[in-house]
Amino acid sequence: MRVGVLTGGGDCPGLNAVIRGAVRKGTQEYGYDFVGFRDGWRGPLEGNTVPLDITAVRGILPRGGTILGSSRTNPFTEEDGVRRIKDNLAKYEVEALIAIGGEDTLGVATRLSGEHDVPCVGVPKTIDNDLSATDYTFGFDTAVGVATEAIDRLHTTAESHMRVLVVEVMGRHAGWIALHSGLAGGANVILIPEQRFDIGEVCGWIESRFKVRYAPIVVVAEGAMPKDGQMVLKDDSTDSFGHVRLSGVGEWLAKEIESRTGKEARTTVLGHTQRGGTPSAFDRWLATRFGLHAIDAVHDGDFGKMVALRGTDIVRVPIAEATAKLKTVDPALYAEAGVFFG
Amino acid sequence: MRVGVLTGGGDCPGLNAVIRGAVRKGTQEYGYDFVGFRDGWRGPLEGNTVPLDITAVRGILPRGGTILGSSRTNPFTEEDGVRRIKDNLAKYEVEALIAIGGEDTLGVATRLSGEHDVPCVGVPKTIDNDLSATDYTFGFDTAVGVATEAIDRLHTTAESHMRVLVVEVMGRHAGWIALHSGLAGGANVILIPEQRFDIGEVCGWIESRFKVRYAPIVVVAEGAMPKDGQMVLKDDSTDSFGHVRLSGVGEWLAKEIESRTGKEARTTVLGHTQRGGTPSAFDRWLATRFGLHAIDAVHDGDFGKMVALRGTDIVRVPIAEATAKLKTVDPALYAEAGVFFG
Amino acid sequence: MRVGVLTGGGDCPGLNAVIRGAVRKGTQEYGYDFVGFRDGWRGPLEGNTVPLDITAVRGILPRGGTILGSSRTNPFTEEDGVRRIKDNLAKYEVEALIAIGGEDTLGVATRLSGEHDVPCVGVPKTIDNDLSATDYTFGFDTAVGVATEAIDRLHTTAESHMRVLVVEVMGRHAGWIALHSGLAGGANVILIPEQRFDIGEVCGWIESRFKVRYAPIVVVAEGAMPKDGQMVLKDDSTDSFGHVRLSGVGEWLAKEIESRTGKEARTTVLGHTQRGGTPSAFDRWLATRFGLHAIDAVHDGDFGKMVALRGTDIVRVPIAEATAKLKTVDPALYAEAGVFFG
Amino acid sequence: MRVGVLTGGGDCPGLNAVIRGAVRKGTQEYGYDFVGFRDGWRGPLEGNTVPLDITAVRGILPRGGTILGSSRTNPFTEEDGVRRIKDNLAKYEVEALIAIGGEDTLGVATRLSGEHDVPCVGVPKTIDNDLSATDYTFGFDTAVGVATEAIDRLHTTAESHMRVLVVEVMGRHAGWIALHSGLAGGANVILIPEQRFDIGEVCGWIESRFKVRYAPIVVVAEGAMPKDGQMVLKDDSTDSFGHVRLSGVGEWLAKEIESRTGKEARTTVLGHTQRGGTPSAFDRWLATRFGLHAIDAVHDGDFGKMVALRGTDIVRVPIAEATAKLKTVDPALYAEAGVFFG
Repeated sequence: MRVGVLTGGGDCPGLNAVIRGAVRKGTQEYGYDFVGFRDGWRGPLEGNTVPLDITAVRGILPRGGTILGSSRTNPFTEEDGVRRIKDNLAKYEVEALIAIGGEDTLGVATRLSGEHDVPCVGVPKTIDNDLSATDYTFGFDTAVGVATEAIDRLHTTAESHMRVLVVEVMGRHAGWIALHSGLAGGANVILIPEQRFDIGEVCGWIESRFKVRYAPIVVVAEGAMPKDGQMVLKDDSTDSFGHVRLSGVGEWLAKEIESRTGKEARTTVLGHTQRGGTPSAFDRWLATRFGLHAIDAVHDGDFGKMVALRGTDIVRVPIAEATAKLKTVDPALYAEAGVFFG
Repeated sequence: MRVGVLTGGGDCPGLNAVIRGAVRKGTQEYGYDFVGFRDGWRGPLEGNTVPLDITAVRGILPRGGTILGSSRTNPFTEEDGVRRIKDNLAKYEVEALIAIGGEDTLGVATRLSGEHDVPCVGVPKTIDNDLSATDYTFGFDTAVGVATEAIDRLHTTAESHMRVLVVEVMGRHAGWIALHSGLAGGANVILIPEQRFDIGEVCGWIESRFKVRYAPIVVVAEGAMPKDGQMVLKDDSTDSFGHVRLSGVGEWLAKEIESRTGKEARTTVLGHTQRGGTPSAFDRWLATRFGLHAIDAVHDGDFGKMVALRGTDIVRVPIAEATAKLKTVDPALYAEAGVFFG
Repeated sequence: MRVGVLTGGGDCPGLNAVIRGAVRKGTQEYGYDFVGFRDGWRGPLEGNTVPLDITAVRGILPRGGTILGSSRTNPFTEEDGVRRIKDNLAKYEVEALIAIGGEDTLGVATRLSGEHDVPCVGVPKTIDNDLSATDYTFGFDTAVGVATEAIDRLHTTAESHMRVLVVEVMGRHAGWIALHSGLAGGANVILIPEQRFDIGEVCGWIESRFKVRYAPIVVVAEGAMPKDGQMVLKDDSTDSFGHVRLSGVGEWLAKEIESRTGKEARTTVLGHTQRGGTPSAFDRWLATRFGLHAIDAVHDGDFGKMVALRGTDIVRVPIAEATAKLKTVDPALYAEAGVFFG
Repeated sequence: MRVGVLTGGGDCPGLNAVIRGAVRKGTQEYGYDFVGFRDGWRGPLEGNTVPLDITAVRGILPRGGTILGSSRTNPFTEEDGVRRIKDNLAKYEVEALIAIGGEDTLGVATRLSGEHDVPCVGVPKTIDNDLSATDYTFGFDTAVGVATEAIDRLHTTAESHMRVLVVEVMGRHAGWIALHSGLAGGANVILIPEQRFDIGEVCGWIESRFKVRYAPIVVVAEGAMPKDGQMVLKDDSTDSFGHVRLSGVGEWLAKEIESRTGKEARTTVLGHTQRGGTPSAFDRWLATRFGLHAIDAVHDGDFGKMVALRGTDIVRVPIAEATAKLKTVDPALYAEAGVFFG
């Protein structure tokens, strides 16, 4: 039997480890062979493939990114998308698909499985860790590690100049990276998308920190927002492409803090460094196990399912259920971190 | 109310993060004050204390080791131990104790709580991750990270010289560090204490690896043993202090592999580097949360309990139950890794 | 004899190592005692001091930043600045000063030594490595290391999405960080302040890179500029505070590359993470030796001099000479890197 | 013109960067093509080659080890060695050789160039940094970095248990790694092969360190030796293979320190982790430049020469001269570090 593998959406450390795990076990234990589809759903849509065997996956475990390439292509928005995919799967004699990706990629897998008899197994991937039904997604631990190391470095600069340093981390809809790296890095303020912040309260925490002669670090998720009416975006407050990423809430915060507290404030936007490079040991372990269990699901003919982490176990859940709602930071969990604010 | 804190057993990255979490929350939210007992149970036994307040815990989050010092002192083997501890707690007006440690340290806490009305809350600490009732203990992720980085480095040396490299990692009774770092580092053989290995089979895996022109990495837990009769320790096979650590199973393996396969083999014993230094982001997050929840348990008067990680939640369990049995690697989990052997 | 120590200008990994080296040797071998002046020249100006002895310098070797704090205060622009400094040195019975800083800080030291009989020894500090008379300044190697690790991480993201990634590194007037991290990170384009670049040529290199199915990384120093007339800053091309740092040449490049080549381009601005955190081993070694040799110069009464690295030797040079001209990247050295462009 | 490249001796981070630099510049600027000889001098001796072009060197810059493999084969000890090499060079139409290696590999290159008209250019490689005529060799900075990070980690364990930690680093004949990592890691004792140490003095330093309540770290080069008559190796003081590496001076020191001071002492032998893995930014920069300048030397027909670092310049020196004498640690430089002992 031949199994197709594709990776969709933004890249994430651990994708190659998933691919390797599935190919190693599928080949050695089940006697399957594999075909790689290039650039997410565009691959099966356009019949764009890469060879995928044990030789192809040698040495990729520690490598970030994905050897299959990625894209955000959605076959359901392409003319005749489903039929073209089914034709290509037939052409390449692919009898099962492993789709590794986030909400969009897995959403396509759900519909192809459920409505169009395309046998798919899903592997959840979101660096933001905001997917339901799994305790963690791979890539998240690496991103938190990169952010924490950056915060460690920024502390010394903040102390030396008695300056506020704002660190903008990833997280448009969920504050997991901000919460974990903020706690691990000893941040004095952590701001997440799940809860509108009050800029006055933030400045209060900052001033109380200076009172004990320590310089504050503010960790803010890119999707965090102040209370209504507090954020007045000047016409020129987006940069030349309207990138929010590069002139967003982090920049706005530093400006507001400077004008309200009179303290110097600087922003660092970590950006893509959070999602590239070699995966952490935890992410390699998790991604490898996801790969092993995904091919087991294929072997069991258990399609329409996604692998997930529960405690230390890998389980299977219906993809549909997993992608139904975003996993956001629970208010009680966020409140726990509050003891470190100010 | 005054709370005493102590750390016992071998040091472990994250101990300071636990202390900081408990002191920050206890002081700010519950209005407690704290006293640190030096060097584990020896502290309350001998009335040896250190000041412990918010100033004392500033900046310790990223620091490995423990600001309180540690020891393996067991008051139950000391003359009049329990009475002396109770006297010192009274003398310092300590009404509750947070004991951070492994089986031995927590075992003492259980008996003091259960049999002698000393109100104790436990925080589990074992770098080997072999304590029941918690998914993970802090320090483990850091140790796995250090071991994985070493394995990454050793791969290139192995390949350049087509040589076998044996990496001996911590784990006397449980193979968690070997299993996780071996999987994350792409080892070709992983040997754990839970299952006696067959040296012939190990050499078979090594030879099959060389057949595809790749040089093998063998990760072995210090407590792993070959099948009965296979390991013949020469009189001179322990070093000048009889340290197993420095002339143990890793050395024996390299020697056997050389003589059985004719391939050059070298051993690296990672030793103490696995347990020192700054904690990983995951361990800082886990240890900080353990500290916050330990002081909550004190606040609730919920003594004789230990904090534990279940999935992403911190829960409380009876210390006695948690220390009752060693958490070892499940055979099925170990079998999962087998696909990568050879 | 009592020696004063101060650190001026932007913080830099290794400042604490210099302080420790001078205090350890001065105390143990010469029997000096020390006083720390807080926040650069503001310290002696305002008589703001911190205790500085062997206890004060314990454990600071691996810590970034400076335990003395820093500022850009210039006594020559302050009313009565020189007299106030001389009065405070007399008040604290300070007979010699070690000034650790860049052009401005050392410029003050030169004038105080030469024109006002204040015995100063200089220690050069610039993370940009743009100070004449020394092969390297401490902090530079750390900054290059941080930038190189970021470039390593960005490669995988670039490849996975076949996207251009622009990395803006420090270097307003000299391209040393860009050149070294670009070479070490395998960048496909390196742009430095010393040579105006042609945006058309840059896009040509990028397109040739895509032709071989590889995604390009562009490393650009914050001070790099295109040829006259090529850079047209839109009204909206500065962010809400007109920070060049966050909407500077890196942002402009990504925008131009997108519009000229039709390829997706993203910018990462590394910012303050390059100058904070623990120093690299090389920087700890260099900074420690600078500290040891600075106190030797004080002992020899060799004032008005600065310590410098020549090959593997630490030498002394007149401060004036060292700060006379900026050390920029030699065109021949930049040309060497050209073989990797495109 | 076709150029052959080989790497000999122990592996070292940066070998691949040298190869890449030479191949990129040779191909693009001089129109050469290349052939890789496998496993050092064994390659040309046995006519064992690997393809070496721009595609072959893509992505190898950050990879440790050597894509060409290595060996310690010496053609002058092989029957008919020189003739066989000349025949194979003729067979593969190789008109010049770039030999990357240490004393032995370069010694062969000297004789082949000088006595047998084989046009060779040398690139110095020794992780121990003990080669004359160059300020640094690539790989050394990486090794020092790995050792320093290990020392950082061991400090916290030492402090937590008030225990002596002995770290044995590489360096059979020269103490460069011990000196640099010891200084950078804040060691309290540094022992090098160049100077016999007095075990009594070492124990004195250790005791004085404990007096101020700090736990000592001893960094010892594997080749360091105590004064005559002090080191009495018990029969059981070598391990089961008589590996000095695993039961050498580090083990002996810990034992002596325990028996003489009564303090607990532990040894960590860093071993192969020092020479594997990704090169530091400094080593990538140095190795890349060595590759670029080596191919320039070939282009200039400047054979029998070796590239070398002097300050920040790459120069050429006669190989013979460079390998004539070992570069050891100057007593004055070692004395500099003495201020930190005890």
